[in-house]
Amino acid sequence: MSHLLIIGASDAGISAALRAREVDPALEVTVLAADEYPNYSICGLPFYVSGEVPDWQDLAHRTTEDLERTGMRLLLRHVARSIDPAARTVVAVDGEGRERRLAYDRLVVATGAESATSDIAGLDLPGVFTLRFMEEGLVLRQHIEAHGPAEVVIVGGGYIGMEMADALTRRGLAVTLIEHGASVLKTVDPDFGGVLGGELERHDVRVITGMDVQAVQAREGRLVVRGDRGFTKADMVLVATGVRPATALARAAGVATGVHGALRVDRHMATNVPHVYAAGDCVETWHRLLERPVYLPLGTTAHKQGRVAGENGAGGEGTYAGTLGTQVVKVFGIVVARTGLRDEEARAGGFDPLTVEWTAWDHKAYYPGARELRLRVTGDRGSGRLLGAQLMGLHGSEVAKRVDVFATALFHGMTVEALNDLDLSYTPPLSSPWDPVQMAAQAWQRAAREAA
Amino acid sequence: MSHLLIIGASDAGISAALRAREVDPALEVTVLAADEYPNYSICGLPFYVSGEVPDWQDLAHRTTEDLERTGMRLLLRHVARSIDPAARTVVAVDGEGRERRLAYDRLVVATGAESATSDIAGLDLPGVFTLRFMEEGLVLRQHIEAHGPAEVVIVGGGYIGMEMADALTRRGLAVTLIEHGASVLKTVDPDFGGVLGGELERHDVRVITGMDVQAVQAREGRLVVRGDRGFTKADMVLVATGVRPATALARAAGVATGVHGALRVDRHMATNVPHVYAAGDCVETWHRLLERPVYLPLGTTAHKQGRVAGENGAGGEGTYAGTLGTQVVKVFGIVVARTGLRDEEARAGGFDPLTVEWTAWDHKAYYPGARELRLRVTGDRGSGRLLGAQLMGLHGSEVAKRVDVFATALFHGMTVEALNDLDLSYTPPLSSPWDPVQMAAQAWQRAAREAA
Repeated sequence: MSHLLIIGASDAGISAALRAREVDPALEVTVLAADEYPNYSICGLPFYVSGEVPDWQDLAHRTTEDLERTGMRLLLRHVARSIDPAARTVVAVDGEGRERRLAYDRLVVATGAESATSDIAGLDLPGVFTLRFMEEGLVLRQHIEAHGPAEVVIVGGGYIGMEMADALTRRGLAVTLIEHGASVLKTVDPDFGGVLGGELERHDVRVITGMDVQAVQAREGRLVVRGDRGFTKADMVLVATGVRPATALARAAGVATGVHGALRVDRHMATNVPHVYAAGDCVETWHRLLERPVYLPLGTTAHKQGRVAGENGAGGEGTYAGTLGTQVVKVFGIVVARTGLRDEEARAGGFDPLTVEWTAWDHKAYYPGARELRLRVTGDRGSGRLLGAQLMGLHGSEVAKRVDVFATALFHGMTVEALNDLDLSYTPPLSSPWDPVQMAAQAWQRAAREAA
Repeated sequence: MSHLLIIGASDAGISAALRAREVDPALEVTVLAADEYPNYSICGLPFYVSGEVPDWQDLAHRTTEDLERTGMRLLLRHVARSIDPAARTVVAVDGEGRERRLAYDRLVVATGAESATSDIAGLDLPGVFTLRFMEEGLVLRQHIEAHGPAEVVIVGGGYIGMEMADALTRRGLAVTLIEHGASVLKTVDPDFGGVLGGELERHDVRVITGMDVQAVQAREGRLVVRGDRGFTKADMVLVATGVRPATALARAAGVATGVHGALRVDRHMATNVPHVYAAGDCVETWHRLLERPVYLPLGTTAHKQGRVAGENGAGGEGTYAGTLGTQVVKVFGIVVARTGLRDEEARAGGFDPLTVEWTAWDHKAYYPGARELRLRVTGDRGSGRLLGAQLMGLHGSEVAKRVDVFATALFHGMTVEALNDLDLSYTPPLSSPWDPVQMAAQAWQRAAREAA
């Protein structure tokens, strides 16, 4: 019987295992989990810390029993130490420190990413945390419950920083968020970032932008966060300054790296080393619009790439269709989403972009409860091709699935004009005869005509 | 200066006028409105009757001033009596009974549809209503406010029947809904119709299915609704048994008709009569999947067809992309939506369909407030092509825009498998790493594999 070995039991690894078992029920599939938490939703950790999710067990996408019922073998607390591509073996160390050599026919490396914090001093101090793995989430909440910190500084205004500002505010902590850029959530346009910053402040989060954090120090039982423009004190610090791919194991085995130091893979998720595939936060990701690899670690992407790696690890011929960078985040009452390229990204990608903002009601204004949606559409002036969209609105105004309509249109290379041809659903309590997606497209076209 | 004349000032007519003025600001555009309510949202009438929309003026998509500001000329209370295609003139009668002859270079017929009620006797009795035009909505609400009827019978369990059952319940009337089919909302599968029926009953609507209504009679100051399986008494009756295209004017001028007696048009919305276009509820509609015309009068379609007719009426070369039959309705707390073909429709269309239902949470179950979504996916067994989807869930679970993701995929002829390639947005409060749309696609594939 052929044996597929998978290193890593988070989104990409488990997705690969499930797909491999699905396409070839005769295939032997083994998954090495470095910790005791296979297939957990690490995206859910902010909601566990906030207390909205009472039990950490609820964060499991599937239980260990669910997983084993599909026929895969799970080896928990098994850390892979080395890969021998010539012998097709992996050496792993189990929880008791015992070495174990596992043979494979095909291998999927899904070692994920780790927090990128290297240029901040003092991260090993008690009360300083990162949030990347289940264990870190458990320790963080335990710390809050045991020590009752009153003030926290969050370093980094990206997705995790935003969600944790929300989460820790809910927990009753006074939150200061420090972002080195000019606005929070730099993955959307500054205007939208500004609104999010305002939403944070409306909930009593102190937002400091344009500050680089250099060190955390312990002083008289508290922590001092020092930046280039001053310092602030806290009882607890969370560093959420992004991630970097965890590639040491694969690199040692000869796997080549590319963008951002991530493992290089082709569209079949194959590395340069025979019989070795890789997927998830440790690899480069093909961008469907830029038509080149980028580094864009996301759970959705990890699932898709893992599925392709699993299919091919089982002898199939799956191809990863590419990312559009679709993302959404809810911060207190506001939802912000994006897909495709923003203006500056499109320009850097060789397009001639025009970005137009349009404000529309999420449903007919005459029906109670209508809320404003802000839609920013980016299209190519020359070809009229849709390049991207950013949406912002109140929770409940179908922001997320509206960005998905844009994402589905982008997937097919539609023009902005062609969005008007889409037969989208309408009833006055939920939309307009032209959905806001289409109204924004029409506004883009008017602006493009005037600009021409 | 060239003159575009448009007969009809509802969705299709105004959409045509707006688009014509947009593509050719030098074009003279005249719109004949039979009543005093140009560009009103007749889809909003149920919410006006319910009182959720206090003022009927709020139902206007745009005010008369908004419309005139675009440069179009509006002739209110002008009923077109005849078209002379050889002379390119239209005779209209104004509110004072004066005849007026208008010359055109190009003509758009957007005469809409009228209530189809012909086989029920007694519809002219006081207290018996249909709901198709603004005037009817105004009269209906006035009647309720003046006479305070306690009990109403609604004949017809389609979209309007459902919305009016909701609306009149909100107004405090005791509602009986009579549907001749085996379940309400026959445009979705009976299972979904059954749930909607239950939702109506949960709100104290009496639902009678499988009964044909033959007559309404006046008896001792009340109305008696007689059907083939008995009778029921009421103070008021609303007949909502569908519509038929209003084509007499165009037919008299030689415009050919097709499916369901609707005006025959090509993909450019041109009729067989030179210089005469037609759009909206009075015409056949090209079905993108069936690749043949159907009769499917919807506001969304009227807007799109009107836009194409207006573009071509202004000398452009627009093509109507076709309908997918996308529809959504909210009934009390439940939202039901569909797009594409249901199983039986697909079979009749020459496909070999398989329909699979999947239940998923609208977002990660660990995050508070997760609600069940039911998704029914129809695909072609042989080609794997996506053919349609039906969704049902509680209001607030992004049912409408999820059906739009399916609609956008259908528009591009995607396979069910390819839905997994879509880069859809995810955050735990709003979705899952595989959106329910994709989970349902995967369930369909598993079922198709097992059935093969």
